[in-house]
Amino acid sequence: MPVNYATPSPEALFPVAGVKLGVAEANIRKAGRKDLTLIEIAPNAAVAGVFTQNSFCAAPVKVCIDHLSRNPDGIRALVINTGNANAGTGEEGLQAALKSCAAAGELLGAPLDAVLPFSTGVVQEPLPIDRLIAGLPTALANLSEDNWFAAAHAIMTTDTVAKAASKKVITAGKTMTVTGISKGAGMIRPNMATMLGFIATDAAISPPLLASLVKEAADQSFNCITVDGDTSTNDSFVIIASGKGALSFVSEEESGWAEAKAAIFAVALELAQAIVRDGEGATKFITVAVEGGVSQEECRKVAYAVAHSPLVKTAFFASDPNLGRILVAIGYAGVDDLAVEGVKVWLEAAGESALVYDRGCRAALYREEDGCRLMREAEITARIHLGRGNAAAKVYTCDLSHDYVSINANYRS
Amino acid sequence: MPVNYATPSPEALFPVAGVKLGVAEANIRKAGRKDLTLIEIAPNAAVAGVFTQNSFCAAPVKVCIDHLSRNPDGIRALVINTGNANAGTGEEGLQAALKSCAAAGELLGAPLDAVLPFSTGVVQEPLPIDRLIAGLPTALANLSEDNWFAAAHAIMTTDTVAKAASKKVITAGKTMTVTGISKGAGMIRPNMATMLGFIATDAAISPPLLASLVKEAADQSFNCITVDGDTSTNDSFVIIASGKGALSFVSEEESGWAEAKAAIFAVALELAQAIVRDGEGATKFITVAVEGGVSQEECRKVAYAVAHSPLVKTAFFASDPNLGRILVAIGYAGVDDLAVEGVKVWLEAAGESALVYDRGCRAALYREEDGCRLMREAEITARIHLGRGNAAAKVYTCDLSHDYVSINANYRS
Repeated sequence: MPVNYATPSPEALFPVAGVKLGVAEANIRKAGRKDLTLIEIAPNAAVAGVFTQNSFCAAPVKVCIDHLSRNPDGIRALVINTGNANAGTGEEGLQAALKSCAAAGELLGAPLDAVLPFSTGVVQEPLPIDRLIAGLPTALANLSEDNWFAAAHAIMTTDTVAKAASKKVITAGKTMTVTGISKGAGMIRPNMATMLGFIATDAAISPPLLASLVKEAADQSFNCITVDGDTSTNDSFVIIASGKGALSFVSEEESGWAEAKAAIFAVALELAQAIVRDGEGATKFITVAVEGGVSQEECRKVAYAVAHSPLVKTAFFASDPNLGRILVAIGYAGVDDLAVEGVKVWLEAAGESALVYDRGCRAALYREEDGCRLMREAEITARIHLGRGNAAAKVYTCDLSHDYVSINANYRS
Repeated sequence: MPVNYATPSPEALFPVAGVKLGVAEANIRKAGRKDLTLIEIAPNAAVAGVFTQNSFCAAPVKVCIDHLSRNPDGIRALVINTGNANAGTGEEGLQAALKSCAAAGELLGAPLDAVLPFSTGVVQEPLPIDRLIAGLPTALANLSEDNWFAAAHAIMTTDTVAKAASKKVITAGKTMTVTGISKGAGMIRPNMATMLGFIATDAAISPPLLASLVKEAADQSFNCITVDGDTSTNDSFVIIASGKGALSFVSEEESGWAEAKAAIFAVALELAQAIVRDGEGATKFITVAVEGGVSQEECRKVAYAVAHSPLVKTAFFASDPNLGRILVAIGYAGVDDLAVEGVKVWLEAAGESALVYDRGCRAALYREEDGCRLMREAEITARIHLGRGNAAAKVYTCDLSHDYVSINANYRS
């Protein structure tokens, strides 16, 4: 069960003009579930993406990067399967990804390099490409701008809820729509982007502007989350600007851009946080907010050390204010010459804030019962001040529970 | 239950002339258990240690480093408590550690800086120093060279078995004895040393030789293990050379040194591996052997990425050959320009070796039933060849089970 998250209703997901979605049962891994999604993009849209930094990046990721560089202005479709990651599959996997592009392109009257493929699921097993291709006509037949809800469900793997977010912005009397979906619950420690995230807007956004937007949006959303520290082979985050709406942006200086950008960032953050709220086995949503660092990089190092510590995560699961474990993680995060006497740690939840550690030892006014009360909340912030600068960083994570072990021990069964 | 490990019998732990051990119930955290150990060292022994790199290093670690540098030739005692780590305890914690040295020194007729203090247990709670000091006379009263077995038990925390190892070496007709004890099961990812490890030998070893020996021994044993990636605040590893035996070494060139060193390394590795075999919730003992790297550093990076991946560890727990997870971890380990087509992965157990991944995809001859059979073994090696050099490194770890979560969720209750 996700922590304070429910999939929005179909009506709450605004259609984006110029972007149609269709889903099908292709029996990729298990029968009787929608596991194939086709997204058709009207001509002249701008599309940009960021992808995993894992050396074993999946075949579809390689194809995406290649197609986006060869055909940046002509992307017409995304093909997304769940159940199989098509990673660690060598030349055969690459050919399978290309075949899926060719087949979708043929159905839509577009060239092979106008299609971007995405896969998620088990690593190092051959993609059943024939079944995928056989499913495409069904997905094509139900293409509709109203299908975001169905697509959010069809890209799930170990997710317990479908993840989607949508916003409308009115600026200078003109309306812009932003809608997105994401998936992911385990193998989540995005480095450039998350498992799968797709956002579409009807605004027109020039390709250079969109390219910098997608990086910045990823850095402030998907690149700030972690479930288990395992950076996936398939992380992909894509923004589509269909250009069918009223607003159009070529540069950062244009009026309305700040609002447009804020709406897109808000959707990205909502989708990224939804992944943590639905983290495998999660019972708590935890924000690690590090401030007072010399650089953002060292703040992120500390935040990730705390967010990845199995001991910190099990303490949150147990609602046990065994907060020394946070100090331990700060201590091995790799910050040079950290003066521990200058470090402060607060526990914050439900509008309350308790100073836990100060001046080299447990804070004088800290009381165990305060820690116990705050640790029982479902949403908790561990705020850490390093006392050595002005940089800050936030990382969102979840606790480590019995269910994480169960889910991953039984993943393929 | 540890994986293929049982505490040696008291008779199998050879006494080391010049080193006496005594234990007591000091009620540090829980009543009715031996939680205090006093080790008395005869005059003129050499003592050297390596300690945690955690910025929040514990008060006793600071005192150890200080006393070893101020009084390198005069260490006469170690005082070890379990139940409380005396870390994150500021000036008060430092004073408590010094008081324990003063009290032990007074009982033994030695100055304060002749005593090294060691603490293990909960972080960021005040050490009950009065109870510790009150327990010292009892420990003093039962000091004996035959007490290694009792001491191995008295330093345990979440350990399920006491850890000890002992060897005799005869070289050029002279006998040397090496006996050691260690503790640790969680918060284990030593960086210089492990939670607590103590080895004594009756050989005389010159201080400079002992200083380099303790570093090298740690690097080849305790610094190659990980349970959960959490580097403790209290890691300490100490070698005592009492000089009461027949052998004496001043330099590396002396005859018998190779054999003496091998015996000490063997005891250190046995003690370090015992910690992994007794890792919190462990059901499997896993060796990650990385070879074919450009440097030992990159091999260690890869080995630790695999050994720390919760997804790899839960797959081992489940005996599920979901071996793509190993690739994923190799891929995000941070090796620059890794050519994945050159990487090979084998699964090895019970004398069998199965090539799993080769030339960019699942190995042609790999069969799922082989993976299943090997994954069911209690001792498994994941062997990884990076295909780019001649360096190698090994890391020892365990799986991630439900019991890890239970143990750490209930640690303080």
